[in-house]
Amino acid sequence: MEKYVVGLMSGTSLDGVDAALVKIEGFGEETKVQLIEFINEDIPMDLKREILDCFSVERSNVELICSVNFKLGYLFSEAAKKVCQKANFDIKKLDLIGSHGQTVYHIPVPYKNMVLSTLQIGEPSVIAYETGVTVVSNFRTMDMAAKGQGAPLVPYTEYLLYRSDKNRVLQNIGGIGNVTVLPTNCTLDQMYAFDTGPGNMIIDEVTKRLKGQKYDKGGYFASQGKVNEELLNELMSIEYINAAPPKTTGREFFGSQFVDVLLEKWNNLSAEDLIATVTMFTAKSIAVNYRNYVFNRYPINEVILGGGGSYNNTLVKMLQELLPECKIMIQEDLGYSSDAKEAIAFAVLANETANGMASNVLGATGAKERVILGNITPVPYQR
Amino acid sequence: MEKYVVGLMSGTSLDGVDAALVKIEGFGEETKVQLIEFINEDIPMDLKREILDCFSVERSNVELICSVNFKLGYLFSEAAKKVCQKANFDIKKLDLIGSHGQTVYHIPVPYKNMVLSTLQIGEPSVIAYETGVTVVSNFRTMDMAAKGQGAPLVPYTEYLLYRSDKNRVLQNIGGIGNVTVLPTNCTLDQMYAFDTGPGNMIIDEVTKRLKGQKYDKGGYFASQGKVNEELLNELMSIEYINAAPPKTTGREFFGSQFVDVLLEKWNNLSAEDLIATVTMFTAKSIAVNYRNYVFNRYPINEVILGGGGSYNNTLVKMLQELLPECKIMIQEDLGYSSDAKEAIAFAVLANETANGMASNVLGATGAKERVILGNITPVPYQR
Repeated sequence: MEKYVVGLMSGTSLDGVDAALVKIEGFGEETKVQLIEFINEDIPMDLKREILDCFSVERSNVELICSVNFKLGYLFSEAAKKVCQKANFDIKKLDLIGSHGQTVYHIPVPYKNMVLSTLQIGEPSVIAYETGVTVVSNFRTMDMAAKGQGAPLVPYTEYLLYRSDKNRVLQNIGGIGNVTVLPTNCTLDQMYAFDTGPGNMIIDEVTKRLKGQKYDKGGYFASQGKVNEELLNELMSIEYINAAPPKTTGREFFGSQFVDVLLEKWNNLSAEDLIATVTMFTAKSIAVNYRNYVFNRYPINEVILGGGGSYNNTLVKMLQELLPECKIMIQEDLGYSSDAKEAIAFAVLANETANGMASNVLGATGAKERVILGNITPVPYQR
Repeated sequence: MEKYVVGLMSGTSLDGVDAALVKIEGFGEETKVQLIEFINEDIPMDLKREILDCFSVERSNVELICSVNFKLGYLFSEAAKKVCQKANFDIKKLDLIGSHGQTVYHIPVPYKNMVLSTLQIGEPSVIAYETGVTVVSNFRTMDMAAKGQGAPLVPYTEYLLYRSDKNRVLQNIGGIGNVTVLPTNCTLDQMYAFDTGPGNMIIDEVTKRLKGQKYDKGGYFASQGKVNEELLNELMSIEYINAAPPKTTGREFFGSQFVDVLLEKWNNLSAEDLIATVTMFTAKSIAVNYRNYVFNRYPINEVILGGGGSYNNTLVKMLQELLPECKIMIQEDLGYSSDAKEAIAFAVLANETANGMASNVLGATGAKERVILGNITPVPYQR
């Protein structure tokens, strides 16, 4: 039986509320998903400032969190309505809304008097009331009740949607690069995932400082430069890149300070050459990790890129040259969308919960057991 | 079909977590409830201090709220387990837990940049995981989504449990006195409620100052004194007491400053006489309000007392003398318990939500429409 579901996601970067309208057939291993429409709804400036205050231990307080929880409920409702309007889809026919909410705090490891916990806000009662649709929300808390870290939750959807009769890897290129390995017709226990190294964060930072742009759009600057082999070799010798998984990359390591040192030492290179070289560093760190820790176990046929880096054409071209035996694809080649990926994930997780299916991946969150995620807020009208 | 449900309540006074195990038959107008067991679980001192910090705009922050939300989830789970243990009832046979949560903030009227909202914490995922029972929680938010004040929610349960073939009033004597009028076989729209004046708050404050006790246990001090008619007449002339409903009593009015003035002016009276007089003031303010605003519409047969004041025997005796035509009863006479009343209410509200029934009372909260209250957190184990 097919269901129409909206998935809602607002990340910590506050670059808008993602809303994906999808058609889902079946559930569990039989799940089939088709993206119908996607929008990114702006967060008004005043509210963005209040959310930023909610993130801060110094500036947050109970009154603000109480109020912003409801304000976000209204904003999420708007996003759900708009994605349906854009698709010309009658919201009354919607079966479910899956709302991730806005994470305002996350304590994945207890410390002092603080216990394992997480806090997502965006009141589901408001969303259910304003839209007239059943809402599934608060996915992360149940994984943490089961002693997991509450994140990442996306691997389960990746398993459902990308597992195939081919050996596939999903390579996400966000700030950090991370790979999920999905062998031919694998089980949930056979999938594994690890960080490959930097994603866009060094490229973005260098581009910002030398070109005044937020990121290297389409890989244009990198395409104008030449890779400096000496610098590339130095970068590739970083211990982390060659270490065996399991490994997670600290965002701290490849951050602002890393770029300070890089730019000071290599100030003889042109901006384009520098950008080309750090772009190649991301591509090569991915390729080397595949050769050392994936290809030795599975002959990979397909690499499916996601995240902002999948829109960097120079990076994609470099990766294809480094991995000639693989077919390199982006989300769009499969009818999905990198932008919409997380919102789609929460539509799928909502459908799993509504069908009584557990949807955390123990190998991803470290939870003690598989559990059904989230609360259900019913349509508030008595029949 | 009968269901076993635990209701959990923790009030803003932080005098422990109330847990009531009840057997419920039917739902809606057919609801029958039997109290099986009740406990009040202490809140550990450290946690109490953290909750008090959560109440405060100055001392609260997002990290603390995130952590305390989970800590309260564990405490509520313990309370649910203990009330079942005490009743020798296998928690696996429990159908539902209704958890009010701990209100940490409530904005019933918008102001500045704050919207109509409320915040109850005590993570339901933790309760569902730890007990293995479906949890209904967060009752107040949906009423506020429907533009209600989110409180009071108890009138609906009062309607279900106390409506009868008699003309009844429910008189709650907490800090403030308030009456709910339930005419013979009334509908939800026919019930009405208003504040009668002070409940225990003047009695408690005078007893504390003159006798060093938290309250006049069983009405002992009052029973040793003599009512001073002059003081009583002065108190009864307060405009509020004789005003027509709708009316709500500000707790502020009968608070600490009120007692300051009282004790200074009447310092010639003995402690016992003063306590007897303010006890009679509560009784007489109730009786006068009935004569003026209830008996003129319905000949009342039964007065059912609730709240701490129902355990003040002197107060009850005075009330019986002032209302000789009514049968005065306490919750216990009906097989209920004043202590357990609110916890029972949230067990009943959980059962209503699980059965798809709306359970706010428009005349009580001011909501625009009747709505199903709360989120449902399913048992987290896939079948």
